[in-house]
Amino acid sequence: MKPMERTGNMHSVEFRVRDYECDLQGVVNNANYQHYLEHARHEFLVSKGISFAALHDEGLDLIVTKVEIEYKYPLRSRDSFVVTVNMAREGNVRIVFYQEIYRIPDNKLIVKAKITTAATRNGKPVFPAELIKQLGLE
Amino acid sequence: MKPMERTGNMHSVEFRVRDYECDLQGVVNNANYQHYLEHARHEFLVSKGISFAALHDEGLDLIVTKVEIEYKYPLRSRDSFVVTVNMAREGNVRIVFYQEIYRIPDNKLIVKAKITTAATRNGKPVFPAELIKQLGLE
Amino acid sequence: MKPMERTGNMHSVEFRVRDYECDLQGVVNNANYQHYLEHARHEFLVSKGISFAALHDEGLDLIVTKVEIEYKYPLRSRDSFVVTVNMAREGNVRIVFYQEIYRIPDNKLIVKAKITTAATRNGKPVFPAELIKQLGLE
Amino acid sequence: MKPMERTGNMHSVEFRVRDYECDLQGVVNNANYQHYLEHARHEFLVSKGISFAALHDEGLDLIVTKVEIEYKYPLRSRDSFVVTVNMAREGNVRIVFYQEIYRIPDNKLIVKAKITTAATRNGKPVFPAELIKQLGLE
Repeated sequence: MKPMERTGNMHSVEFRVRDYECDLQGVVNNANYQHYLEHARHEFLVSKGISFAALHDEGLDLIVTKVEIEYKYPLRSRDSFVVTVNMAREGNVRIVFYQEIYRIPDNKLIVKAKITTAATRNGKPVFPAELIKQLGLE
Repeated sequence: MKPMERTGNMHSVEFRVRDYECDLQGVVNNANYQHYLEHARHEFLVSKGISFAALHDEGLDLIVTKVEIEYKYPLRSRDSFVVTVNMAREGNVRIVFYQEIYRIPDNKLIVKAKITTAATRNGKPVFPAELIKQLGLE
Repeated sequence: MKPMERTGNMHSVEFRVRDYECDLQGVVNNANYQHYLEHARHEFLVSKGISFAALHDEGLDLIVTKVEIEYKYPLRSRDSFVVTVNMAREGNVRIVFYQEIYRIPDNKLIVKAKITTAATRNGKPVFPAELIKQLGLE
Repeated sequence: MKPMERTGNMHSVEFRVRDYECDLQGVVNNANYQHYLEHARHEFLVSKGISFAALHDEGLDLIVTKVEIEYKYPLRSRDSFVVTVNMAREGNVRIVFYQEIYRIPDNKLIVKAKITTAATRNGKPVFPAELIKQLGLE
């Protein structure tokens, strides 16, 4: 199964490991995978016409409340990889992102993650009706 | 309850947020909490006389296989905080770290995390008998 | 000469290298020294009662226009070090920071840097009269 | 003048700003430009068939001894940009990289840098004859 065949409703972004992202052990530092996952989510939201800055100016924020990341296999210097983004609604305020990282070209599973986010308006949890609509999660 | 009173078997490390760790939203970027948690774990292991470099030279690695992090409240520029480390054995190859981040001085809970690690020798899962002993987890 | 004896007008901040700041070569990644230098400058300004946030709210920014950094010797995992900050006025809009990094406890010179900053109000260069006064650079 | 027309002997790499690279002021943090410059240099060397890992295994390292970076204009979230790499020999042990960062598509100059590197074998300065040849700097 190639990355391109996984993309039904899914969004995916390609990256290459940069040397400064690796640590003493010669592999990508664990925290950097969270950067990759975040960047892929933001690219996905932009592709849906959603701008964090514009939302924030209207007082609406989508904040991460929980991350669960399973590290299956490490990436090394100059590895290419794809980060996928899939999404579901959970209750009234939570939007959950299911994400995976696959090495290219052998499609090896590197990371599997579930990222839970909540909508807040001026710091208080809200039902983000319009956002839900824009994301096709109604 | 003050940080100092939480320290039974527990190790804790104090930090202050640096400006470059904050992002566009004016709060610490989510991935940086993972850096704080990692640094506190490494300080803890060093306090037990355990050196990653020495272990690695003997072929033994303690690798992170899963992180679960709940974000309760954000840290901001120049906030002081303490990261706690507590630990338990899980099965034969896994050592689990329970960690919390509290803001200083009001002791507000910022992050709650469970970090699962596995011992590997030359890439294969092993029972880290000596490490278990050094950590007092027998 | 110990770090404490260097502090005439000077400000200094102590750090310890964190593992995630090191790269594949086992030494601190070059860009991270810029983080250390920045953090020490901000701590210095705070010690003079100067808050970037408050300045920014009044429309005044102190922006870095040039960095010159000489790398003399690398820092490694868990090294302790001190970052010094000294300062001078250059012309009407520039404030220059002279900074050094010394390893502790052997006082080995690690980095020597000159950081040039300019004051801007709403993006235009200005003479920061009040800031110059607060910093004792009149 | 478009980026593509600047590439005579020059190598260039395209990037897009990721949100986590921006700081409190809403612009890319100064240290991150050093990451961009480094990544472009490494890509350039790889394009010349030069592997840091292989060199390092033979005991030869190309280490950065000085950086001079002029910050002309800030990059913001999601800006696209190109990093150029040009190179010259300086004396017997130094190889100097001249690098620029231009925003895409308006070609605005963002950063101008000179990065000085020295070849060392087992920590001692050496004349890197073979490297000089591979890089076409004879």
